[in-house]
Amino acid sequence: MRGYSFFQRASRAFNDYPHLPKILVLFTVSGGGLAAVCHTAFADAGQDDIKKKKVVVLGTGWAGTSFLKGLKDPSYSVQVVSPRNYFSFTPLLPSVTCGTVEARSIVEPIRNIVKKKNFDADFKEAECYKIDTVNKKVHCKTTQPSHLGGGIEEFTVDYDYLVIAMGARANTFNTPGVVENAHFLKEVEDAQRIRRTVIDCFERASLPSISEEERKRILHFVVVGGGPAGVEFAAELHDFVKEDLAKLYPALKQYVKITLLEAGDNILNMFDKRITAFAEEKFARDGIQLKTGSMVVKVTGRDISTKERSTGQTVIIPYGMCVWATGIGSRPVVMDFMKQIGQTNRRVLATDEWLRVEGCNEIYALGDCATINQRSVMEDIAIIFSKADKNNSGTLRVDDFKEVINDICERYPQVDLYLKKKQLKNFNALLKNSEEDAEINIEKFKTLLAQVDSQMKNLPATAQVAAQQGSYLADCFNRMKICEANPEGPMRFRGTGRHRFHPFR
Amino acid sequence: MRGYSFFQRASRAFNDYPHLPKILVLFTVSGGGLAAVCHTAFADAGQDDIKKKKVVVLGTGWAGTSFLKGLKDPSYSVQVVSPRNYFSFTPLLPSVTCGTVEARSIVEPIRNIVKKKNFDADFKEAECYKIDTVNKKVHCKTTQPSHLGGGIEEFTVDYDYLVIAMGARANTFNTPGVVENAHFLKEVEDAQRIRRTVIDCFERASLPSISEEERKRILHFVVVGGGPAGVEFAAELHDFVKEDLAKLYPALKQYVKITLLEAGDNILNMFDKRITAFAEEKFARDGIQLKTGSMVVKVTGRDISTKERSTGQTVIIPYGMCVWATGIGSRPVVMDFMKQIGQTNRRVLATDEWLRVEGCNEIYALGDCATINQRSVMEDIAIIFSKADKNNSGTLRVDDFKEVINDICERYPQVDLYLKKKQLKNFNALLKNSEEDAEINIEKFKTLLAQVDSQMKNLPATAQVAAQQGSYLADCFNRMKICEANPEGPMRFRGTGRHRFHPFR
Repeated sequence: MRGYSFFQRASRAFNDYPHLPKILVLFTVSGGGLAAVCHTAFADAGQDDIKKKKVVVLGTGWAGTSFLKGLKDPSYSVQVVSPRNYFSFTPLLPSVTCGTVEARSIVEPIRNIVKKKNFDADFKEAECYKIDTVNKKVHCKTTQPSHLGGGIEEFTVDYDYLVIAMGARANTFNTPGVVENAHFLKEVEDAQRIRRTVIDCFERASLPSISEEERKRILHFVVVGGGPAGVEFAAELHDFVKEDLAKLYPALKQYVKITLLEAGDNILNMFDKRITAFAEEKFARDGIQLKTGSMVVKVTGRDISTKERSTGQTVIIPYGMCVWATGIGSRPVVMDFMKQIGQTNRRVLATDEWLRVEGCNEIYALGDCATINQRSVMEDIAIIFSKADKNNSGTLRVDDFKEVINDICERYPQVDLYLKKKQLKNFNALLKNSEEDAEINIEKFKTLLAQVDSQMKNLPATAQVAAQQGSYLADCFNRMKICEANPEGPMRFRGTGRHRFHPFR
Repeated sequence: MRGYSFFQRASRAFNDYPHLPKILVLFTVSGGGLAAVCHTAFADAGQDDIKKKKVVVLGTGWAGTSFLKGLKDPSYSVQVVSPRNYFSFTPLLPSVTCGTVEARSIVEPIRNIVKKKNFDADFKEAECYKIDTVNKKVHCKTTQPSHLGGGIEEFTVDYDYLVIAMGARANTFNTPGVVENAHFLKEVEDAQRIRRTVIDCFERASLPSISEEERKRILHFVVVGGGPAGVEFAAELHDFVKEDLAKLYPALKQYVKITLLEAGDNILNMFDKRITAFAEEKFARDGIQLKTGSMVVKVTGRDISTKERSTGQTVIIPYGMCVWATGIGSRPVVMDFMKQIGQTNRRVLATDEWLRVEGCNEIYALGDCATINQRSVMEDIAIIFSKADKNNSGTLRVDDFKEVINDICERYPQVDLYLKKKQLKNFNALLKNSEEDAEINIEKFKTLLAQVDSQMKNLPATAQVAAQQGSYLADCFNRMKICEANPEGPMRFRGTGRHRFHPFR
């Protein structure tokens, strides 16, 4: 740090004599500029930043990047930590595998975003491997390949607010051989590798010494997982191999086969049945083989073993390339963190409706690494009742709800969804539905709302949700001070006053 | 091969009864079409091809691709064998390292070229590892990664004509540690790897735990070799790191250093001195450090050791990324082939002026794997004299040369170059130069031409030369029959008649 000795000394002087208020002001004002210099010049966030709240963002996927883009309040100092120094437009990954879209066209350097910020922002290409909530710091290590000379670098970054947006990893369900032999489709590199492998398969199948049987094996492309990712990839792969590559390898067209394996009864089972039917028809038309009720139990370099639900038998499927798209799981660092904060029995990090990690202070989680653990109405039914029952009469008339109805609907969005499903005009209609204008006691109230929580749904782990959460959280951060003074959220049923922000929708 | 049993059986039937001349004709005619089907459908070149001369092209660089593109005579059946199924426009590789040009934009799939051919042509993605001149076949093995399941495939391809255009490999001069630690700049993958490494260096240098000294090391980019490749890469790298990357990593600009190491006294020593001076000035202006007389003796993961010619001392240079661009060497398969045909003391394959490999029949070599071993005038001086001396008088008058002068100049291009250098109008001027109209005997003739061979120069190993040789050879192949009947080349001084083709210029 010798190079910055002047700034360092200046900063230290201020630190050593904090009782000099005039110098303090001077340094705080001019120090703003200095801090920026020091900061980008690798000084750790020093004393100059004392007024700036340190926001650390882990991850540069949809959630992290959309948060970073949305953040505008210059009173924060932002550190982004991610092993990827770019954001990638993941919905186009299948198109990259097929060469329709160039990898470069779907990535955006994070440093381009960082440098446009009007406030103190920096990026570090590293992986967070531990979150220390006690000392409010994250432990990071480098991910650059070792060939640069020098081993793994470790460092820590302090935070006041931590935004966890590390995404998820592909979930192999511990199926043996998947990591070694199958391709995932999470990163740009995955897409490029798949593209190269498909072409390698065609080249190898073109060789004169390859037997008919082996040629069929090599040109059998298997996609595991009938979710949107697997289905879309299978369709794109079909266009690639049957249209583009067939022109270059006309003699191989007859050998090419694509199979999609799905353990459940249907592909796209989270969507409307009409969508499933449409996809199944398209697959049939394109000659993509669809095998449902077929659970992969093992993958070797040449074969996939499945357990067939209908027969209970194990089937061996020779293949050339296998793409694994069965869903997502938590990253090890997130699992460790969950253990640490007592969220042991969950698949992903649980947050409240404001994206705050349950059981933590000033830690937010969004995107694929988290789910919103929506509060059930039943859990709070007594509190809701008592908040409405201002005079503690033990019974409520419909009119008593007037004051709290909007807060209930905002705090418990399942109420609205339930009303919609039942085709009721509003909450009053639900209450009135049973008896005209009657008084309602707590038991009655419970009965009326008993079905409401059935409408609670986890948000899907999609790019869209992650991006919306990022924007939402950035907006909250931007208006933190305003909303602390003038809370705009719903009534706190369990506490007093109102929530600072509207919950995430 | 069950799928083609009809064609196979047909072909075999013909093979088993070669004494049936009528069937022979039938099968040869209709077999032309069948052969194309069989061929693209992986049948080895069968009996149907009996009339087609099999041309095997090894390599898909400038020489091989330009030969393939130029070949138009449909009487050949062409097999291209190369570990790369694309041609890459290598002069743009430095631009790919810097992201100015996308890798995809500089490659062309060989199969695109192959499929446009109006004759029987096929490509095999494999590496030739042995040339068998006795049985006229090349031995090949696959290069696809093993993750496709199944090991290395081996096969042979028969040839009537073999075109060796396998290029060269980077020459490390056996300097320890180069292969392990330095980057080359031969292939598209090299360029992409260099690009990633440069960015890795910047990301690593951005980390807070990196010391000043280490930061300087990581951002020290060393280019070894002051030829055109090294000089151009250093200049492109300068623009990349000092212009593009400086914007994304403003705090690192001051640490970035580029050094070019050259063992000789000058960079670009094969060019005009003015070009060298221009490049040196540009380097000085850009702040690229140029160290001449500095020979690299060892490369480790962090340091380059050089022996300094001026002091004799060894200097240790810490570096972050090293690009090795010191020139080219022969590939192992070419070295083996050279041994096999008795070309032991040469750096690359020697061919005659018609690109035919010396000591072989129907084997051609072009591009970086070969040099034209130009015939010296002195070697043939007696023959030249006797061809001119038609009446065997033992002396020649200037007029006697009239008939052979053009042939001499075409066969020995150094004669023309020598005349140009001496600013003589023509060959007669050289002869007349000594004594007016005198008779010239063999000794006198020798003396007059003694300096001519000093003008023999090897062609540089450039893309341009390789491409020109490819076109030239394709043109020869296209006109093989015509030129056999009507040779267009110069007089055969050692033999009788004329050469079929003009020699390569």
